[in-house]
Amino acid sequence: VGARRVTEALLADGRELVYFDEREGVDRIVHDTRRLDSPPPPSVVRHDPLLDEWVAIAGHRQGRTYLPLADECPLCPSVAGRQTEIPSTDYDVVAFENRFPAFAGVDSGASAGLPGEDLLVEQPGTGRCEVVCYSSKHDAAFSALPSSRVLTVIEAWVNRTTALSRLPGVEQVFCFENRGLEIGVTLQHAHGQIYGYPYLTSRTRRMLNSAARYLERTGRDLFADILAAEIKAETRIVARSGAWTAFVPFAARWPLEVHLYPDRQVRELGDLTMLERAELAEILPAILRRMEALYGGSVPYIAAWHQAPVRVSRDLAYLHMEIMSPRRAPGRLKFLAGSESAMDAWINDVSPETAASALRAIPG
Amino acid sequence: VGARRVTEALLADGRELVYFDEREGVDRIVHDTRRLDSPPPPSVVRHDPLLDEWVAIAGHRQGRTYLPLADECPLCPSVAGRQTEIPSTDYDVVAFENRFPAFAGVDSGASAGLPGEDLLVEQPGTGRCEVVCYSSKHDAAFSALPSSRVLTVIEAWVNRTTALSRLPGVEQVFCFENRGLEIGVTLQHAHGQIYGYPYLTSRTRRMLNSAARYLERTGRDLFADILAAEIKAETRIVARSGAWTAFVPFAARWPLEVHLYPDRQVRELGDLTMLERAELAEILPAILRRMEALYGGSVPYIAAWHQAPVRVSRDLAYLHMEIMSPRRAPGRLKFLAGSESAMDAWINDVSPETAASALRAIPG
Repeated sequence: VGARRVTEALLADGRELVYFDEREGVDRIVHDTRRLDSPPPPSVVRHDPLLDEWVAIAGHRQGRTYLPLADECPLCPSVAGRQTEIPSTDYDVVAFENRFPAFAGVDSGASAGLPGEDLLVEQPGTGRCEVVCYSSKHDAAFSALPSSRVLTVIEAWVNRTTALSRLPGVEQVFCFENRGLEIGVTLQHAHGQIYGYPYLTSRTRRMLNSAARYLERTGRDLFADILAAEIKAETRIVARSGAWTAFVPFAARWPLEVHLYPDRQVRELGDLTMLERAELAEILPAILRRMEALYGGSVPYIAAWHQAPVRVSRDLAYLHMEIMSPRRAPGRLKFLAGSESAMDAWINDVSPETAASALRAIPG
Repeated sequence: VGARRVTEALLADGRELVYFDEREGVDRIVHDTRRLDSPPPPSVVRHDPLLDEWVAIAGHRQGRTYLPLADECPLCPSVAGRQTEIPSTDYDVVAFENRFPAFAGVDSGASAGLPGEDLLVEQPGTGRCEVVCYSSKHDAAFSALPSSRVLTVIEAWVNRTTALSRLPGVEQVFCFENRGLEIGVTLQHAHGQIYGYPYLTSRTRRMLNSAARYLERTGRDLFADILAAEIKAETRIVARSGAWTAFVPFAARWPLEVHLYPDRQVRELGDLTMLERAELAEILPAILRRMEALYGGSVPYIAAWHQAPVRVSRDLAYLHMEIMSPRRAPGRLKFLAGSESAMDAWINDVSPETAASALRAIPG
């Protein structure tokens, strides 16, 4: 596991870009000579008093790039006559600020809600949205990356988590991948994303509240005990390495859902040892390959890293990835309809034990 | 507003069916002469300790009827040579137990979690799932129903809310409609559904917790104050009648989202006065017609009634409907990807004021 070479650049409209290269001696272009329109207007976040959640309102994203043809892909390297978001003619892994971000900029500290209305509270949508390209090849897939490349992606996640955590006002850093037209991916080039939220997300807050209550009641860690219970039950285990365990959770919401925990409690990606990273680089693509093989061919999925928040409740957090897919049968998807969307009452048509057994049966 | 004639029947496999007729003198068939397979195995509900939510696992639903051709529709009336779920040759409105229910049966009280494991808790998936057909016409739409028919649907909602609330173990009754292939509707005949959940749903619990905190802090009702704030702000109002107000919420999650509140605090549909019902029968289809007109033609949507739970926190509840659509432009949908699905951090690409203004501009 060698260190990667990190090269920082600025895009023509002032956005940051960072190359992560696996070899010495590559010379990445750090000057973007395009003429770009000025950045879109900032978004806002609004507080929903019924669910006590923040919602980002980002009207400018309506105009974002939508399913470009492969020869117009903004995530491919630049070639003679066509400049993309990446100035160089090649790259290994690259991270850069999204041109149509839901969150951007730094809070000036000036705004704190609409005057006189504590029910209609709005703040600037500050924070950061970055794109992480896994490969200069347009049709690469994370599941097919060699482990050396996954290690480079891990280094990019760690680097950007550290950088975004230092931005004023960022409360949580979220590394994730949306894959597949079926879940609305608008750019097909293999890529993930990293969000720096200006608030603690509702999901994270609820999980950490559960962990706090459990600690108070039992003196034990909720995440570690869930992992131990799944290992003991065995029936929902998908795969284990020396340092990682993948399982379908007992109360899985999605017809295809796998959670991946390090066996040791770790707060965030940067705290993983080199050995843990090396094993992660093997087991994560292998899980995705099993998911793809289950129904034949590609599978739409969301792969989501849960890391400790930047400031609060860090000791309660347990790094883990949750992978979810709406695929419930060949050619059929689960949709989130009334019960899920309006009541948060999920109905899963595939039993977790059946899903785990089918995934285990696929050669790793 | 005349009372409807209610006729109860039993389907061949023991499921309940209730006709709601607008005219006297109709004679509905109450004997279902089909030979039906025995009911599917019961589902279970499992507790997710991380989010403190129940998830239903209903493996049998994988085999449910999926997009039948119009001449095989199980929700059309029976005709000579083809018997459907509705034994009669015609009906106005009919409600019956879903053949592939997520929740069914009555809790025997025998089960309370797996022995020795307080993290892996499972209960029987008791409760009730009903289908409500709005019209014997296969291609009817709620938005095009005459107000007299909407009143019949309201009477069915009230009747079934009362009936399901009396079932042992049902904690909450949820009347809703999923409409449109885009959100996964598997039967195209115009219909809604009613769920009797064996638990308080996570969404309702969170809303009522917010209302309880607000009451403690201010001595006032959260829902009533939100409605008052929206009426005062004006910019997000879609339509008002004497007794109802429809608005796009300040922190709307969906690109097309309308909330409909009675101006008077009401706990559940059965508490609406005849005048409030009559106005509802006008304003609700009119809102749906505006949503359809916005992007031309049909619009996928979820329309969800929030009523008071059966037993707890009833005084905190405020009856209202939330209508949500993923349509963000002609031919384009919002998808719930990583931020929404993994972090509950919604990003809305359409500003609520823009949506409300566009909906207002459409002739009612």
